Amino acid sequence: MANFKGHALPGSFFFLFGFWWSVKYSLRYHSRRLNKNGHGNSRFGHLDVIEGAVRTICAVIGMLAEQFVPDGPHLHLYGGQNRDWVKLMNWQHTTMYLFFGISGVVDIFTYSSAKVPIGLDRLMLSVALLVEGFLFYFHITQRPPLDQHIHALLLIATFGGAAGLLLEVFLQDNIILELFRSSLALLQGTWFFQIGFVLYPPWGGPSWDVADHSNVMFITMCFCWHYALAILIVAVNYTVICW
Amino acid sequence: MANFKGHALPGSFFFLFGFWWSVKYSLRYHSRRLNKNGHGNSRFGHLDVIEGAVRTICAVIGMLAEQFVPDGPHLHLYGGQNRDWVKLMNWQHTTMYLFFGISGVVDIFTYSSAKVPIGLDRLMLSVALLVEGFLFYFHITQRPPLDQHIHALLLIATFGGAAGLLLEVFLQDNIILELFRSSLALLQGTWFFQIGFVLYPPWGGPSWDVADHSNVMFITMCFCWHYALAILIVAVNYTVICW
Amino acid sequence: MANFKGHALPGSFFFLFGFWWSVKYSLRYHSRRLNKNGHGNSRFGHLDVIEGAVRTICAVIGMLAEQFVPDGPHLHLYGGQNRDWVKLMNWQHTTMYLFFGISGVVDIFTYSSAKVPIGLDRLMLSVALLVEGFLFYFHITQRPPLDQHIHALLLIATFGGAAGLLLEVFLQDNIILELFRSSLALLQGTWFFQIGFVLYPPWGGPSWDVADHSNVMFITMCFCWHYALAILIVAVNYTVICW
Amino acid sequence: MANFKGHALPGSFFFLFGFWWSVKYSLRYHSRRLNKNGHGNSRFGHLDVIEGAVRTICAVIGMLAEQFVPDGPHLHLYGGQNRDWVKLMNWQHTTMYLFFGISGVVDIFTYSSAKVPIGLDRLMLSVALLVEGFLFYFHITQRPPLDQHIHALLLIATFGGAAGLLLEVFLQDNIILELFRSSLALLQGTWFFQIGFVLYPPWGGPSWDVADHSNVMFITMCFCWHYALAILIVAVNYTVICW
Repeated sequence: MANFKGHALPGSFFFLFGFWWSVKYSLRYHSRRLNKNGHGNSRFGHLDVIEGAVRTICAVIGMLAEQFVPDGPHLHLYGGQNRDWVKLMNWQHTTMYLFFGISGVVDIFTYSSAKVPIGLDRLMLSVALLVEGFLFYFHITQRPPLDQHIHALLLIATFGGAAGLLLEVFLQDNIILELFRSSLALLQGTWFFQIGFVLYPPWGGPSWDVADHSNVMFITMCFCWHYALAILIVAVNYTVICW
Repeated sequence: MANFKGHALPGSFFFLFGFWWSVKYSLRYHSRRLNKNGHGNSRFGHLDVIEGAVRTICAVIGMLAEQFVPDGPHLHLYGGQNRDWVKLMNWQHTTMYLFFGISGVVDIFTYSSAKVPIGLDRLMLSVALLVEGFLFYFHITQRPPLDQHIHALLLIATFGGAAGLLLEVFLQDNIILELFRSSLALLQGTWFFQIGFVLYPPWGGPSWDVADHSNVMFITMCFCWHYALAILIVAVNYTVICW
Repeated sequence: MANFKGHALPGSFFFLFGFWWSVKYSLRYHSRRLNKNGHGNSRFGHLDVIEGAVRTICAVIGMLAEQFVPDGPHLHLYGGQNRDWVKLMNWQHTTMYLFFGISGVVDIFTYSSAKVPIGLDRLMLSVALLVEGFLFYFHITQRPPLDQHIHALLLIATFGGAAGLLLEVFLQDNIILELFRSSLALLQGTWFFQIGFVLYPPWGGPSWDVADHSNVMFITMCFCWHYALAILIVAVNYTVICW
Repeated sequence: MANFKGHALPGSFFFLFGFWWSVKYSLRYHSRRLNKNGHGNSRFGHLDVIEGAVRTICAVIGMLAEQFVPDGPHLHLYGGQNRDWVKLMNWQHTTMYLFFGISGVVDIFTYSSAKVPIGLDRLMLSVALLVEGFLFYFHITQRPPLDQHIHALLLIATFGGAAGLLLEVFLQDNIILELFRSSLALLQGTWFFQIGFVLYPPWGGPSWDVADHSNVMFITMCFCWHYALAILIVAVNYTVICW
């Protein structure tokens, strides 16, 4: 949805998951260091199932929101006299949420049944991020420079996260990769809000000049600051849990 | 061959192999989990040799079809008064099938002789996919936008599969990579059919408007739906075999 | 800072660190080979903390220099009547130094506390190089060919170093990767000086013709010679320490 | 050197090394399989030193040829009234040979001294291929389509070989990677000859039409055939040694 709320919704989801991950993985790492017998993991199994369920619910909320907002497609794919496609933007966003939903369902099965191999959950989350990045990539052609650039920067967080998750399929329970993933999720979260503030200022007022090159340059740098912030949040969470 | 049949043939091959792989690797994974003594693999050795033989036969069928259809080159590489190249499209398709044939032959040798190192079969299959993607990449320049885009999407499945297979050379018998490869083969299979339906509707009727941007946007999203379908097929096969 | 000093400062930093690394890792490798009991590492722990502190100090010097040179932004981000961005170039350089500073701080914590996992220091240094490369990449559009090319070559050293460091996160204490990283840091160091000499000759005189294609071709080759020099320096250090 | 001989020289070098590697690594693999006590390697140590020496000599021959052919630069880098660069093409080729020479010297040290870590030789050979690819990449801009394309295809063999060698740094004595490297070296060898035949037909006659798109399409496919030939050569060598 091309408005502030449409960016705030996924932004909140990503921020919450990034924050939660930085807490969960720090806890798990320290509990494992303290009692080195490996049993410390059992109580996290339930948490992972719940996390999968929450992700599925978030994805369903996102899909319903994209479909049934007043100017949404209401599940119509094509229509009108010329049989044109209806609201392809909303359909694309629905597809993105769909894959996060699939990833959530796979999480539930992976952690509740021993028959599904561990790692499949990370592969599916990686696929969900790849699909998100893939759709965004083709989404943003034919837009003004700043709009295109601010969305393109999102792809760095998306593909970076997907690459990290692919590594996690093979290097499981690696705290460094898990914190890295948390930081990139936080980055995506705050950056979705930044996009909303730049293109659709919530308190009215004009949006930024989307053709000004110095705005593009500032946004590039601003993206790095967001990442510095994400690192700070992860570091604070890690330190607090450590003590 | 630039018609529906020319896309349905490789589409069927890829779909069949993807389906078969999702069945084979699920079976192997579960039989290995049940009797953890490692002997469960012996009866799969024969299957792998047969699979290699079937792939070789499929490739030969594809090569013959490309060469000896009525408007094919009939093994003439150049001819005419100006010594022009004859039917380079068909020759390129023949080359693609050739490498899948080489891969099939290497499969046979790898699984029937202990002197050929395991992993070489996956490397050659990866090379076959890389060659397919490489030829497609240079194949599709100078075509209308939708035609180019719909073939370019195929490259994602092709190169994704090749990358996964390269990992399988070193991480052998990894069920996650094997299911991932199955899903990408299914994706290629159904997508070849989709290309056929879009560009050469089999029941007559006009093809889609190849210059319309909203068609390009729909096709992008449709590719994700095909992948969701591929994941569903693999998941159903895995679940059925699990019980 | 678009002058010779602005390139000599980071050039010196990179050269010093590259030189120091080639010495440190050669020493560590040989001391470990001589007494194979693994205790040889203890005295290097302190060195790593000091190295982190020095990197932090270097980064702070760089940030202050970028902000408080006479024509710097003096911490003003936007100003003037039109609320334009102030000196975005200097702000971008400040951001680059900031991430090297973060990496230095993470180094200190990693090597002084057992609670921070080893490897996080390399990940953060890799992120610092990625941020540097990322900002440079968007930094250099809209410049004359030679200027653009000479900076683009820097990206090879930057991203190469970042890739090597990402591998070091998982393959720790690998002498080959460590020497590779040293050589790329030396390359960046000498190349910053080369940029300074080409674009802002320190002894007056005109800068090179930035639109001449043969200059671009020479600079490409010159970059390889710099790398050959970097390899030579690392090889000499390694050999001297070996004896 | 922009003539047939200038392409036949590196072509012969690459072909010989590819052929030799496919023989050497097949022999080593089988001798190791036969006597599984690991002592089978000792006599190969000398071979590796000799191979390094031969590579160094080949590189020196190449450098001298590039410098001292009648129309070469004879070690003059710039000259003339305007202090123009002299024969940058030849200087670039000299630089390529230089890095293969460095790689040869590192080979000698790696295999004759226990103080140099195994793997460094492969890293340096990889760097030599990366430098070759890097220089070629910037070498071929501003040329007609066929000339540019036929050289660009070379980059696939170059960068593919470099990537395989980087893996070999960490996965040593992996027969699959070694045969893969051999096949890519053979591909480079035969392709250099193909370039010579296309652009500078040795028996006089006109070169191919460098602007014709169907020639570009044929060359793309021809590259795959060369690779099929390289695979065949490696397979024959492997099979002969096997028996």
